[in-house]
Amino acid sequence: MNPVKVGLLGLGTVGGGTWNVLMRNANEIARRAGRGIEICHVATRNLDPDQYPELDKAKLTDDAFVVVNDPDVDIVVELIGGYEPARELVLKAIDNGKHVVTANKALIALHGNEIFEAASQKGVMVAFEAAVAGGIPIIKAIREGLSGNKINWLAGIINGTGNFILTEMRDKGRDFSDVLKEAQELGYAEADPTFDVEGIDAAHKLAILGSIAFGIPLQFEKVFTEGISNITGDDVSYAEQLGYRIKHLGIARRTDTGIEMRVHPTLIPEKRLIANVDGVMNAVLVDSDAVGATLYYGAGAGAEPTASAVVADIVDVTRTLTADPENRVPHLAFQANSLTDTPVLEMGQVETAYYLRLQALNQAGVLADVTRILGDQGTSIEAILQKDSANETNSTPVIILTHRMLESKMNEAIKQIEALDSITDKVCRIRLESLDSD
Amino acid sequence: MNPVKVGLLGLGTVGGGTWNVLMRNANEIARRAGRGIEICHVATRNLDPDQYPELDKAKLTDDAFVVVNDPDVDIVVELIGGYEPARELVLKAIDNGKHVVTANKALIALHGNEIFEAASQKGVMVAFEAAVAGGIPIIKAIREGLSGNKINWLAGIINGTGNFILTEMRDKGRDFSDVLKEAQELGYAEADPTFDVEGIDAAHKLAILGSIAFGIPLQFEKVFTEGISNITGDDVSYAEQLGYRIKHLGIARRTDTGIEMRVHPTLIPEKRLIANVDGVMNAVLVDSDAVGATLYYGAGAGAEPTASAVVADIVDVTRTLTADPENRVPHLAFQANSLTDTPVLEMGQVETAYYLRLQALNQAGVLADVTRILGDQGTSIEAILQKDSANETNSTPVIILTHRMLESKMNEAIKQIEALDSITDKVCRIRLESLDSD
Repeated sequence: MNPVKVGLLGLGTVGGGTWNVLMRNANEIARRAGRGIEICHVATRNLDPDQYPELDKAKLTDDAFVVVNDPDVDIVVELIGGYEPARELVLKAIDNGKHVVTANKALIALHGNEIFEAASQKGVMVAFEAAVAGGIPIIKAIREGLSGNKINWLAGIINGTGNFILTEMRDKGRDFSDVLKEAQELGYAEADPTFDVEGIDAAHKLAILGSIAFGIPLQFEKVFTEGISNITGDDVSYAEQLGYRIKHLGIARRTDTGIEMRVHPTLIPEKRLIANVDGVMNAVLVDSDAVGATLYYGAGAGAEPTASAVVADIVDVTRTLTADPENRVPHLAFQANSLTDTPVLEMGQVETAYYLRLQALNQAGVLADVTRILGDQGTSIEAILQKDSANETNSTPVIILTHRMLESKMNEAIKQIEALDSITDKVCRIRLESLDSD
Repeated sequence: MNPVKVGLLGLGTVGGGTWNVLMRNANEIARRAGRGIEICHVATRNLDPDQYPELDKAKLTDDAFVVVNDPDVDIVVELIGGYEPARELVLKAIDNGKHVVTANKALIALHGNEIFEAASQKGVMVAFEAAVAGGIPIIKAIREGLSGNKINWLAGIINGTGNFILTEMRDKGRDFSDVLKEAQELGYAEADPTFDVEGIDAAHKLAILGSIAFGIPLQFEKVFTEGISNITGDDVSYAEQLGYRIKHLGIARRTDTGIEMRVHPTLIPEKRLIANVDGVMNAVLVDSDAVGATLYYGAGAGAEPTASAVVADIVDVTRTLTADPENRVPHLAFQANSLTDTPVLEMGQVETAYYLRLQALNQAGVLADVTRILGDQGTSIEAILQKDSANETNSTPVIILTHRMLESKMNEAIKQIEALDSITDKVCRIRLESLDSD
């Protein structure tokens, strides 16, 4: 069979990785796919022709629209990133009847509904395995591998930068800002680390995972997002003393009243496998009604790990080029006309357990007051850790783990706790999940 | 679209689980697949019509060949297990132009080449996700999710019974035979536990994983297989003192001279994620050239976990019913005409590191002799653990970890060590793998 013709938009980290993997493993890939995969046209602005082997095999341009409009191209691979012109390029490619493979999580999270609608109308595919958790085939696992299941919830470490920072804080007792600086020097974190450490990147990915798990349209704007920049070394240490680790998780959960979608630092029991996923690695834990808990682990970023997912998508698309569009795997796992309008819950409607760190004066009755306030809001204390670190203000940190309760009630409890005369500082609140199977 | 019609062979543990999952999640599955999945004909010998909900929706028979020959059936789901009549039924179904889904690892490992050849000639699919690691979508991950990679090696905990036994031995310091008895009482182990504890079940699965990872025909008979029945509580404890855990692994590795395929107890560093996979759970770690290490974890057996994989296969087959056969995912990941005759290595040609437990007289020069023997065979000692447990024979156990060497040379070294006057018992040898990425 003739090779399938690919147009590559972007020759940066992931684009270069994709070029290299397709060149190095051409034979291995063709033995699997049954035909060759040929990058026939590349759009790049920073062109060093010596940088990649055999780059002279492809036409080169600095105008991505030339590739998108090239009649020879069967599949457009968008590795530019960002919202525009990526969105315009992808829509134009679809309009030209081309299939699309993209690693662009921001694009899919924000404009996926529009893009998939356009793709369905044109009968083409838009594949995006590389958009979530890099080289881990998590989209495939959820959309296809678990297709017999009703998914209960998923929880993922889906930002490597954040996980690197939290791992270093725990392993070496270092501070957040100190580790962030190192992560920037190592190239794990951007000069502006906001997307990573404030959870926006993870929220993009979680919006995608939530949609394919529960069959709802993409709703990035409804993902609750809290970063890790307020986590202190003390919190990491206290969590460890209580048998927990702090991970920056993206959590999507189906409840009787709606769907939870939230990204925040989370205490999880140290014995859970996912609690032991360290450094820049990613992992997604999925709890489903038939299979129970399954976990998928691997590199969530980097040139070749991401290229691995891009190439898998190219092979998948190649295999179904001649298939009826209605028999392909649906973009959001469920048929477009079968998506539901199950509401995404406000954070106040979410039920979870909590780690609270209070700074309390050394006087009688503080714990009684706190216990009463929590009891009034319908929960009780699971564990307490009181530290003897009297300082000049004669106050000590008190760490409390609560049972599950509504976030709105915890907000009220925290307000009342902070109003106590015996509490000298803001309450630090970190959510806690046992990650038990439902 | 009309529902796809399924004929179910077997209504035992997995058959019953498949029935229940398809009934309970019918709506969820149809929303994904775009059409319903209807079990129209069931073959079972032990029929309790009250056992499963809505069983009256299907025709029932005690003759599996009636189902295989039913012209209404599109997909035959074989959940009888064993070699015969499963093989005959599957071949007959193929001959009748029906697609097949099976959970039968023994059948695929031993007769897969014949079955896939017949299926290719008839243009039908034989799907077998449930044959390896139960509900973990590991076949899909390797065949499709990693299709851009050259796979270096994989290592899996692919028998839950064995992993349960080793976990209990470590957690509670119990003996093999004691835990085996409990596993049998819990229903984790069969009355005749040979298939599980001697590694035959794992070897079936490894033969399948090796084929789809490296593109070689199925060669179960060439898998080296060693069970866990000789592992002592002392070995588990010594390994732990040295920073290792003992797991019963199936390992397939590509080397310059051929393919290793071996099932044996293995010391692995305790910090590896897969070392922390406990109880009856399964996990497969795959090392590939582009993505690096990925790991897949979940329940490897049981009614609904296995049904989860069976249903996913039914959905997959349903989606490609109208596709060109040559555009489907190949049975063994690589196109049938692209399989290679890369040899599977004899165990003597395998290179690995070793844990050796010697029983040595308390006299000078023993370690010098052992060191010399290992040096003569081209390796050296990585670590030594000497225990002060003088007994009536005035001998003590000495535990040695070696660097990597050829198994044939280790066999020679062990022969020489056992011939030393100062060594009072057989040498216990357990292989050791660091599971570093290549």
